[in-house]
Amino acid sequence: MDPRVERHAAVIVDHCLDLQAGDEVLLMVPSVAEDLAVALAERAGDRGAFPIHVGGSARSHRAFIRAMDPEAFDEPPAAYVALAERADAAVSVRASTNTHQTSDVPPEKNAAFAQLMQPIEESVTGKRWVGTQYPAPGNAQDAEMSTPAYEAFVYDAVNKDWAAQRAFQANTVELLDDADEVRIVAGETTDLTMSVAGMAVVNDDARKNLPGGEVFTAPVPDTVDGEVLFDMPVMHQGRELVDVRLTFEAGEVVDAAAEKNEALLESLLETDAGARRVGELGIGMNRDIDRFTANMLFDEKMGDTVHLALGRSIDETVPEGREGNDSAIHVDMLVDMSADARIELDGEVVQRNGTFVFEDGFDDGA
Amino acid sequence: MDPRVERHAAVIVDHCLDLQAGDEVLLMVPSVAEDLAVALAERAGDRGAFPIHVGGSARSHRAFIRAMDPEAFDEPPAAYVALAERADAAVSVRASTNTHQTSDVPPEKNAAFAQLMQPIEESVTGKRWVGTQYPAPGNAQDAEMSTPAYEAFVYDAVNKDWAAQRAFQANTVELLDDADEVRIVAGETTDLTMSVAGMAVVNDDARKNLPGGEVFTAPVPDTVDGEVLFDMPVMHQGRELVDVRLTFEAGEVVDAAAEKNEALLESLLETDAGARRVGELGIGMNRDIDRFTANMLFDEKMGDTVHLALGRSIDETVPEGREGNDSAIHVDMLVDMSADARIELDGEVVQRNGTFVFEDGFDDGA
Repeated sequence: MDPRVERHAAVIVDHCLDLQAGDEVLLMVPSVAEDLAVALAERAGDRGAFPIHVGGSARSHRAFIRAMDPEAFDEPPAAYVALAERADAAVSVRASTNTHQTSDVPPEKNAAFAQLMQPIEESVTGKRWVGTQYPAPGNAQDAEMSTPAYEAFVYDAVNKDWAAQRAFQANTVELLDDADEVRIVAGETTDLTMSVAGMAVVNDDARKNLPGGEVFTAPVPDTVDGEVLFDMPVMHQGRELVDVRLTFEAGEVVDAAAEKNEALLESLLETDAGARRVGELGIGMNRDIDRFTANMLFDEKMGDTVHLALGRSIDETVPEGREGNDSAIHVDMLVDMSADARIELDGEVVQRNGTFVFEDGFDDGA
Repeated sequence: MDPRVERHAAVIVDHCLDLQAGDEVLLMVPSVAEDLAVALAERAGDRGAFPIHVGGSARSHRAFIRAMDPEAFDEPPAAYVALAERADAAVSVRASTNTHQTSDVPPEKNAAFAQLMQPIEESVTGKRWVGTQYPAPGNAQDAEMSTPAYEAFVYDAVNKDWAAQRAFQANTVELLDDADEVRIVAGETTDLTMSVAGMAVVNDDARKNLPGGEVFTAPVPDTVDGEVLFDMPVMHQGRELVDVRLTFEAGEVVDAAAEKNEALLESLLETDAGARRVGELGIGMNRDIDRFTANMLFDEKMGDTVHLALGRSIDETVPEGREGNDSAIHVDMLVDMSADARIELDGEVVQRNGTFVFEDGFDDGA
């Protein structure tokens, strides 16, 4: 077996889930990722944990959803609920031979199914849970890479020394913890300010997402002002939004445009009141993610980027007694910060052209 | 998709399990049989049932069992127990790319695992449950057949008109229901008598096993007398017993020999007291199974054969107030009845050279 797969399994079992003797762990691993399933089963066994393999292929999922009548189910399947409730931990692995396998499932059926399964999803992701990626051919194709090159990309991003990465990211957490106003400037097209005063800053060292590698928080609602060009494509509902431009006033989008699929952007903004507001500010710090691969699990952790999410704030970023943003959507959008760009905190430049103030080679602009 | 796979799924869902709206059905289908998993998911969806895919590959199983410490688990995994208890129905599909995948798992660990999982196994098989076969390459190899030829063999055996098969088999059930003494004669090597008086006769029309296609009962303990040559190989614990000869007196084996692995036969007979006695008499009536494939799911239903099982009687064959045989083992062994052979019931020949008295071409010996 590829030793990178065994290392990936070790990171999942030892770092992300910290499996203990007696733990029952759900392995939700598509068959194209069988090597990872084998390595996870072995590593779980080593730790005295019991692996339970669940979940079918995208082909089975497609066949079932197309055939089912959503009206036939008024509550989630009791056996699945019982399984999810009793499990101690879970791994969800993404891996596709064809990422468009469910593209001919009627959207309303997909939505009905997702709604039916939501309590189970919440039960599973509320445990020691991690979502990760196996470098299957369909995913390599989405990334516009050969499968071997994509494998190298994925394993570099996930098989890291996460303690070292955490320590590296702690520098940014410290800066943000002390900050009130954040200003993001990139070229002539992005100049945005927001307050993060009193919001919690999270050091994502790959507990729930593997790869991890971002530092994120939530802006204070109503404080987002200025304009931004998201210069990397945004994938939404299988479609690509290109060069999204947003103008914010007092926290709300007042002007929106996109070079491609602008109508989709407009419908997105009209989802609900919170869809016009920013729920998350994230700073990508995983330098092994050095290219855009049209996969948000990786893209949002990319080095030299920041991202904003329209919609819902992440619970962990909103301390008791503070208010975040609420919405049915959470759509991340990225800004490239690698050139002609800076992050300022309370007027001090803390990152210029991707290099932080606490790194060698930082240009203080003097 | 191969229409034979879709037909197989329809037989499972409609005939074996009779899935209803709201049923939750466990699909335990190895990934090599993904086509069948897809067809089952679709058919389940058509019926308003909810499929839950569970179970990993033989490779994962091997990796886990080798790594685990059986002492680490004093009871079966609670999440798996909860899943099994709440499910309404289940399908177990056998399908291997290598039927020896777990041959390097220490037997004591395999045994410990099987014992750990036994309550779950009983919970699952006690529901609307069916065990069936997908014609994977490893299974074709065991059958000494090409994969396409094995596919044809499997689908002929399983995709039958089971109502018609049941009606055909009912003739044999009727004969056995009225009978006391059964005599089986084949060549110079087999002449065995036993009483089946008062025992229940089961018409296996593929409810728990697909293929089905046998009529079976239990002999009255102590009544089995005579000698028998089992002229088809017996697979036991991955090893082959060839030309097993047994002599019975008052229900018990008093003499035993085999051309190959005689020591294994002896240890088998010494398992417990019931291991020296016959728990089942079966008559194979699925004429689409026309060859030995070293797979008891098929072999015991083969046309023109009878089989005896050393060990445990099947519960259904032992009516309230009667006694069957009890043992930890249940090992089926076959006698070819296609030539120079007959079955007599109370002195009347009811099958000669494989042809029953109720069929055209029966030779009454006159």
